[in-house]
Amino acid sequence: MAQKPSIPKGTRDFGPQETAERNYIFDTIRSVFKTFGYAQIETPAMENLSTLLGKYGDEGDKLLFRILNSGDAFAGADFSKPLAPQVCEKGLRYDLTVPFARFVVQHQNEISFPFKRFQIQPVWRADRPQKGRYREFYQCDVDVIGSKSQVNELELVQIVDRVFSLLDVRVVVKINNRKVLTGLAEICGFPDKVVDITVAIDKLDKVGLEAVEDELREKGLSAQAIAVVEPVLKLSGTTEEKLAAMRALMDGGSASGVVSQAGLLGLDELEELFGLIRAAGVKNPVEMDLSLARGLNYYTGAIFEVKALDFPIGSICGGGRYDNLTGIFGLPDMSGVGISFGADRIYDVLKGLEKFPEGLRSATRLLLANMGELPFILPVAAALRSAGVPVEIYPEAAKLKKQFDYADRKAIPFISINGSEEAAAGRVNLKDLRSGEQRTFDCADTAAMLAFLNG
Amino acid sequence: MAQKPSIPKGTRDFGPQETAERNYIFDTIRSVFKTFGYAQIETPAMENLSTLLGKYGDEGDKLLFRILNSGDAFAGADFSKPLAPQVCEKGLRYDLTVPFARFVVQHQNEISFPFKRFQIQPVWRADRPQKGRYREFYQCDVDVIGSKSQVNELELVQIVDRVFSLLDVRVVVKINNRKVLTGLAEICGFPDKVVDITVAIDKLDKVGLEAVEDELREKGLSAQAIAVVEPVLKLSGTTEEKLAAMRALMDGGSASGVVSQAGLLGLDELEELFGLIRAAGVKNPVEMDLSLARGLNYYTGAIFEVKALDFPIGSICGGGRYDNLTGIFGLPDMSGVGISFGADRIYDVLKGLEKFPEGLRSATRLLLANMGELPFILPVAAALRSAGVPVEIYPEAAKLKKQFDYADRKAIPFISINGSEEAAAGRVNLKDLRSGEQRTFDCADTAAMLAFLNG
Repeated sequence: MAQKPSIPKGTRDFGPQETAERNYIFDTIRSVFKTFGYAQIETPAMENLSTLLGKYGDEGDKLLFRILNSGDAFAGADFSKPLAPQVCEKGLRYDLTVPFARFVVQHQNEISFPFKRFQIQPVWRADRPQKGRYREFYQCDVDVIGSKSQVNELELVQIVDRVFSLLDVRVVVKINNRKVLTGLAEICGFPDKVVDITVAIDKLDKVGLEAVEDELREKGLSAQAIAVVEPVLKLSGTTEEKLAAMRALMDGGSASGVVSQAGLLGLDELEELFGLIRAAGVKNPVEMDLSLARGLNYYTGAIFEVKALDFPIGSICGGGRYDNLTGIFGLPDMSGVGISFGADRIYDVLKGLEKFPEGLRSATRLLLANMGELPFILPVAAALRSAGVPVEIYPEAAKLKKQFDYADRKAIPFISINGSEEAAAGRVNLKDLRSGEQRTFDCADTAAMLAFLNG
Repeated sequence: MAQKPSIPKGTRDFGPQETAERNYIFDTIRSVFKTFGYAQIETPAMENLSTLLGKYGDEGDKLLFRILNSGDAFAGADFSKPLAPQVCEKGLRYDLTVPFARFVVQHQNEISFPFKRFQIQPVWRADRPQKGRYREFYQCDVDVIGSKSQVNELELVQIVDRVFSLLDVRVVVKINNRKVLTGLAEICGFPDKVVDITVAIDKLDKVGLEAVEDELREKGLSAQAIAVVEPVLKLSGTTEEKLAAMRALMDGGSASGVVSQAGLLGLDELEELFGLIRAAGVKNPVEMDLSLARGLNYYTGAIFEVKALDFPIGSICGGGRYDNLTGIFGLPDMSGVGISFGADRIYDVLKGLEKFPEGLRSATRLLLANMGELPFILPVAAALRSAGVPVEIYPEAAKLKKQFDYADRKAIPFISINGSEEAAAGRVNLKDLRSGEQRTFDCADTAAMLAFLNG
C-alpha cells in the first residue's frame, strides 16, 4: 500500500504560480539591492551549534532545529546526561544576521570594508506553526558593516522606497533611534527602564494619554519622571519641529533639567538622516516615530520599520544599527546597519492589493499544437526560443481539443496550429486566444512572428 | 574569549564574486528552461523521513541528514531500541527527484499534465567530504511528467545544447536507451546481467576488446553470449549505421538468433529521437553511446550524459526516462523524463576555461566619491540608479586615497569626484579608471552620463 504523501507541518510547497509570484518579489528586491552596490553572498543551511547557541536568547535556543550527527550518532553518548548536546553538533540557520556576522569574522581578510552585502535564503525555526508563521521561510537581508555614516541609513530608506515603488505598494517608513530612547530614560531618571518606557509610549494611539501614564506608573516611574515623559507624548508638528522639541528636552529643558549626551547624539543622527532623505528625495512618507520599540535589545542607533499604507498587516520590513555585530565572534568595533524584507508578508500585501503583474500567470507565450508536422514546426520553435520567447510544443499529436485545453489551463495566450497544408506552403498560423485574432506568417519570418506575439 | 568561527565540514560560504558567478550559471539555465515552457517549483528543505527512506538504497538511507524532533525529542523514547528512528521524523532533502515525485502525487489535482517543471535548490548528503564532493550542494533539475513522447527527450537535448551555447562551452551529448541494453542482455541469453554487460562495455575505450571479453567471462557470460556481444563492441560508423546494425542484431540477426522486442522498441525510440534532433538542429554533437551505464537501476528508456569537450571532468549533466516515477507514492503509470545540471562541475569548467563574463567581477559601475557635497551628489546617484546603473556613494568623507582604494579593491570601473566647485557649477566629473578618460557632464544630463558609463 503506497503511503499518502505529505510534508512536515509548518513547511510549504510552492507550485508554478506561487513560485513565479515569489520570484517577482525576490527579483525586484535583488535588482534594487544591486543598484546600490550591495553584493549577494550565501552561507550554508547548517551552522555549527556553537555558532548559533546563545545568540537568540533561551527561547531562540529551543527553537533551533538540530541535525543528528551522521554515522552512529549515539556511540559514546553518556545516557545519564542530556543527549541532544552530545548527538547534535549542527543546527539549521535561524536567521541571516548571525551567519553574516560569522561570515564577516571568518573572511575578514578577504573583505573590502565597508562591506555591503545582501542575502536571500531560507531560515528555519521550530516555532508552533500558525497562520502566517512557518517553520521554513525566506529572509531578504541587506546590511552594510564597517561604516558609521548616516549615508548608510539613508540608502536603506532609499532601497525600501525604491522596492515598494517598483512593487506599486504605498508604504510609510518609520524611524526611531535607540540613543534618543536611552536619553529619554536618562532625563526621566530611570536609565534602566528604556524598554518599559518605549513599550508604554507605543500604546499611545490605541489607549490614550492617561492609560500610557498609568502603565508608566505601574512600571515604577515616579510622578516627576512621568512629567518628563509627558511632553514627548504630546509631541506634534513636522519632523523638524519634533526634533527641535526633543533637542530642547535632552539639552536640560525637561522638567528634570537633566542633560543627556546620548539623547543629543541620537538627535544629531536623526537630524542628519532626515536632512539626507530630503536631499535625496524619496516618494513614500518617512516619519520619525519615537514609539518604535523593535529590537531594543540589540539595536544601538537607528531603528526602522515599514508598513503598508493600504493593507492591514504588521510591519513588512524592519531593521536598525548595531554597534558591535561581530564582537561575539572576536572582531570588535564593527558597526553595521541593515534591514530585512519580510517576503511572506509582502507576498500577502501584493496578493491582497492585486499587485502581481498579469504576465506571471503563464510562463509560456505560445503553444505550437502537434499535428504530426514536427519537422516543420521544430525550427520555428527553435527560432522563437532563441529570440527569448517561451514556446511549448504539445508532445503528443493528440486531439486538438486536448491541446486547446492544455493551453487554456496554463493560460498560454497564443496557439499555432499547422497541418500538412501549412507545412507544404511554409506558412505558420498564429492565433491570439484572448482576442481571437489570427494571422499567417512565412515560417522563416521570425521577426514578424515576434512582433505579433509580443504586440 | 571569543570563539573562532567556522562552518560544518563539507559546507561552503559563497562570497560576492563566487555568488555572482554561480548566479550567472543558474540564471542562464533558468532562462533556457523558461523558453521551453518549464515552470519553477520549490519544495521544503525538510521532508518527512517516511518520504525519503527506502528511496535511495541502504547506502542512501545512511547518508540522509536527520533532524531532531523539536521539544523534548527523547521523551518517551525506548532506550533499548535504536534511538534515531524514534527521535527524528524529518530529514533534509537528498535530491530533487523524490520531492518532485511526492509533489506530483500530493498536488495531482492542481497540476496540468504533461507537467513541465524545473527546480533549483540545495540538497544535503552526509557523504565523506572530499575534493569536489560537498555535504550541501545545488541541483538544477528539469523534468516533464505525464507524456511518453520522444519530443520530451528532444527538448532536453535542445535545452542542454542551448545552455552550453550560451555559456560558451563545447559539449557532447551522449544518449543510450535502457531497453536496448535489456535487448542486448536478452539476445545474449543473460537477461539478468544487463548491468554487468553495460559496465564491461563501458571500459572498451580504456582497456580494449580482449579485456572487456575477459570481464564478461568473469561475470559468468558463456562464449556464445560473448560472441553475441562482440559485434556491439565493434560497432562503428554514423549513428544511422549503428542503429541499423543494432536493429539487425535485435531482430534475430545475432549469433543467438534471438529476437528482442524490448531491444527493437528501444531502437525505435532512439531512431525517432535522433530524427527529431536532426529536424530541430542543434549546435553541439549528439552521439549514441551504448556503453552509458548511468542510472541503470531506475531509468527505463532514454539515458543522457553530457561531457565538456575541452575540460577533463566527469559528466556535467545526466538524466533519463523513468516509467513509474510516482508509483511509490500511489500514482502509477506516470512516465517522466528529466535531466540534472551539475552546478559545481559546470562552475569548475567555466572557471577552468575562463568563460565567466568580465562584468561579474564588480556589481558596482560607479563610485561617487564623498567630498562632503552629499546634497549635490545624492540626486545624481538617484537618477542613475533609477536608470538601472549600480552606483555607490562612499559613506564617509574620507581621504581620497582611501576612496580610490575602495574602488580598486572592488574593481569599480568608474569614479566621480565632485567638490564644492563642481557642486556650485552643477557639473559632474566622471572618470573611466581603466582608460583614464575623464569627462564632465551637466548634473541633470542623466542620458549623457549613462552613455559614457555604459559605453
